[in-house]
Amino acid sequence: MTCEEDGPRVATRRGLLAGAGATAATAAGAGLAAPAGAAPRRRRADVVVVGAGLSGLIAARDVAAAGRSVLVVEASGRVGGRVRNVSIGGGEVVEGGAEYIGPTQSRMAALAAQLGVATFPAYNTGSNLYVREGRVTPYDALGLPPDPEGLPDAGGAIAKLDALAAEVDLDAPWRSPRAREWDAQTLETWLLANTTTASGRLLLDVAVTSVFSFEPRELSLLFVLFYIRAAGDQRRPGSLVRLISVAGGAQERRFAGGSQRIPLALAERLGRRRLILDAPVRRIAQSGSGVRLEAGDTVVRGRQVIVALPTTLAGRIAYAPALPARRDQLTQRLPCGSVIKVHAVYDRPFWRDAGLTGQIVSDAGPARVSFDNSPPRGRRGVLMAFIEASDARAYAGRPQALRAAALENFSTAFGARAARPRRFLITDWDAEPYSRGGPVGCAGPGVLTGFGAALRRPVGRIHWAGTDTATHWNGYMEGALRAGERAAREALRAL
Amino acid sequence: MTCEEDGPRVATRRGLLAGAGATAATAAGAGLAAPAGAAPRRRRADVVVVGAGLSGLIAARDVAAAGRSVLVVEASGRVGGRVRNVSIGGGEVVEGGAEYIGPTQSRMAALAAQLGVATFPAYNTGSNLYVREGRVTPYDALGLPPDPEGLPDAGGAIAKLDALAAEVDLDAPWRSPRAREWDAQTLETWLLANTTTASGRLLLDVAVTSVFSFEPRELSLLFVLFYIRAAGDQRRPGSLVRLISVAGGAQERRFAGGSQRIPLALAERLGRRRLILDAPVRRIAQSGSGVRLEAGDTVVRGRQVIVALPTTLAGRIAYAPALPARRDQLTQRLPCGSVIKVHAVYDRPFWRDAGLTGQIVSDAGPARVSFDNSPPRGRRGVLMAFIEASDARAYAGRPQALRAAALENFSTAFGARAARPRRFLITDWDAEPYSRGGPVGCAGPGVLTGFGAALRRPVGRIHWAGTDTATHWNGYMEGALRAGERAAREALRAL
Repeated sequence: MTCEEDGPRVATRRGLLAGAGATAATAAGAGLAAPAGAAPRRRRADVVVVGAGLSGLIAARDVAAAGRSVLVVEASGRVGGRVRNVSIGGGEVVEGGAEYIGPTQSRMAALAAQLGVATFPAYNTGSNLYVREGRVTPYDALGLPPDPEGLPDAGGAIAKLDALAAEVDLDAPWRSPRAREWDAQTLETWLLANTTTASGRLLLDVAVTSVFSFEPRELSLLFVLFYIRAAGDQRRPGSLVRLISVAGGAQERRFAGGSQRIPLALAERLGRRRLILDAPVRRIAQSGSGVRLEAGDTVVRGRQVIVALPTTLAGRIAYAPALPARRDQLTQRLPCGSVIKVHAVYDRPFWRDAGLTGQIVSDAGPARVSFDNSPPRGRRGVLMAFIEASDARAYAGRPQALRAAALENFSTAFGARAARPRRFLITDWDAEPYSRGGPVGCAGPGVLTGFGAALRRPVGRIHWAGTDTATHWNGYMEGALRAGERAAREALRAL
Repeated sequence: MTCEEDGPRVATRRGLLAGAGATAATAAGAGLAAPAGAAPRRRRADVVVVGAGLSGLIAARDVAAAGRSVLVVEASGRVGGRVRNVSIGGGEVVEGGAEYIGPTQSRMAALAAQLGVATFPAYNTGSNLYVREGRVTPYDALGLPPDPEGLPDAGGAIAKLDALAAEVDLDAPWRSPRAREWDAQTLETWLLANTTTASGRLLLDVAVTSVFSFEPRELSLLFVLFYIRAAGDQRRPGSLVRLISVAGGAQERRFAGGSQRIPLALAERLGRRRLILDAPVRRIAQSGSGVRLEAGDTVVRGRQVIVALPTTLAGRIAYAPALPARRDQLTQRLPCGSVIKVHAVYDRPFWRDAGLTGQIVSDAGPARVSFDNSPPRGRRGVLMAFIEASDARAYAGRPQALRAAALENFSTAFGARAARPRRFLITDWDAEPYSRGGPVGCAGPGVLTGFGAALRRPVGRIHWAGTDTATHWNGYMEGALRAGERAAREALRAL
């Protein structure tokens, strides 16, 4: 949920599909209920897509483009899933969820171009700030944090991780030559064995939590290596540096008008008639002749179904017949990360006057990593921070405490002016009823080797999409898009 | 599901509450569906209990004993949950799920005595067999596997684990002095650092998988230490040896007539009118005035609710309002283990003639650990084996292959006669629609320190029971019972 925490004021919510009045909150209260007496509405299509996030919408686009009928069923009152614009007033928006595009994300680049959504570079001019034990040290935005002890240590570990990642089998990480060894340990175990300094560990911890929204102790080394490898292409192999970078990295460019313009444009082209909002899917039954979904007050029938949800949420649907054991147990083992995104909105991006980018790397939470997320024309200044993993848990349900703590982090870095934003917006993905975390399902030790084979394997007429299932830019919009395209191909072949 | 795999014959199922015709299979097909037009039945009680396993039934008993009204809502067509008798013909049964009672399980002992369910010692006379690289070596049932290299190695590691376990805070493992360190690594990482021989590793791997139904790489060291500590009392501290032992251990005694007699007797005393079977709970709504559950074709209202399900399955219910973030994310992170129990039924326990206990410890799967599970009067002979973790995954949905492989394991140990049982029964807990694994939810690294505080914390009118939530014999019937008693006290206080 996104709320505005401005002193003691009450949270507000925003539905963002034009014309759709219901918000996620309404859907959670009403949509989950079984139809009360009234006969259900009935719909039918060749392919039914569950989830109107980027992955589901792309799958639906491809099914429709192949001349087959398609319906997209969405639990909340809007499209976009974890891609969501949030208003900051004055007709401007920021992204509450996924927002960037960077090198090697070729399908997203093509899609944005096709839909006429322009991109612009994330603000990255001047100096970043490294905050350590209260001391603030600027460093060039194209350079690295000025930590003479920690930097070589962290850099060495990152180079090793990148080299190991190159050995991972992207399609089947569990078949990589050293899969058994890598999936038996946490990333933290590996980091302890491959770093020597507290500063190096700090830099790595901040990098890891900002990428995964998990602590290093929660992650399988194999999964981390897979994720790194997936963040590249054949010419430019995946690297942890690309994942954490602005220039040349995953945070390089933004979308004019906010990233949700992409799913909104997709939904518009798909057409309102192909979209069923406020309809949480409770049950998917399949038989020899087709599938039958119970979704809100609607019964939808089809021949194939594409489930484009986080794996953990897909496990909350009742299936008949029941899912195979390995698939069901996978859904018990691929949790979403813990992440809250905060935006402090100012009259203007005043830090730029001091030659600062707005980016920090800090040893003090909850705002350990920040970015300048101002609208492109600079009519407002916006500092954005990710509140990750244990920080997100510590501040869950405590918007005023989070506001105070994050603004203290901003003030330490950018001065007293940062303490008095016009607005302070909190988007808590862990509390979002139809996301329950973000950005992606991550695997702890033993999950990929034990259950990975069930990640994409269709179950009869059911095909699995969502960025969880991607082999290229897993966890990103690029991954969601590619997974949706792959699932659409599967479903079309099966028709 | 339990099926009889006798060559190419088809699986059969058994509903085990007298008078209840519907089986879990029927419930899965029909019960999950929303009411089709017909007005829902309506029931009301002070306390509503979700789940008629041991934990839920005990909670209901205590609520009723306090003079409050109670209803138990159960998804399947029988009571007992993971405690389930399976017929072997001739009026005899074996346990498809939990079955043993041992020292320091005081509440179960008192309950069985009160209900008039007798216990008898598990057969443990003569020699066990240690099977290594095809070589079968007998050893005294009161002794240890004859592995001169591996035994001291494994024994040393077990002694260390027991010593570390003594430092765990049972009520809040995440507050133990070394919690952060222990929860950052897998048990496998710890074992690699604390063993020196392949034989020692083998013995430990067999012990760990047989206790947890997880591979050592899937488990947090902190969780394992907690689980060990929980298997004892103040006078006799928990130990891994107690968990894996027959004499003096968790497998010491059995229940006459099968362990399901306990939940059946509890259900009988509770009364059929307090029990709603075939009613999977889809949704729990709470407000200032009470709770409202949608369960099968019934709407149940109450003042407090006790959810006595595995945590992972509790996460599949829709809650209104949505659960707090940490609680929801916990349900994404406490998966059930992978476990299949097999029984080979012979005319008589012929291995006893050769002075054998029927117990094996084997390096070859899938039946790496077996027990004599014959009925007490010896009218049939039954060999039972647990198929654990990766073995259970490998044989999921392949009953004929599992039969062949397990009987080969039995033949290696007990001779050709073991290859020709009268019956071969498979109880696959991973495939069971309302269990989806067993015996208990286990935590990987980072889960207890990050989310443990949400395990038992009530959410408004919702209280959490089930053996997942126990601090004494977590994962066992004793833990289920104690958790049910604790949740009943909570709910009664809140009325």
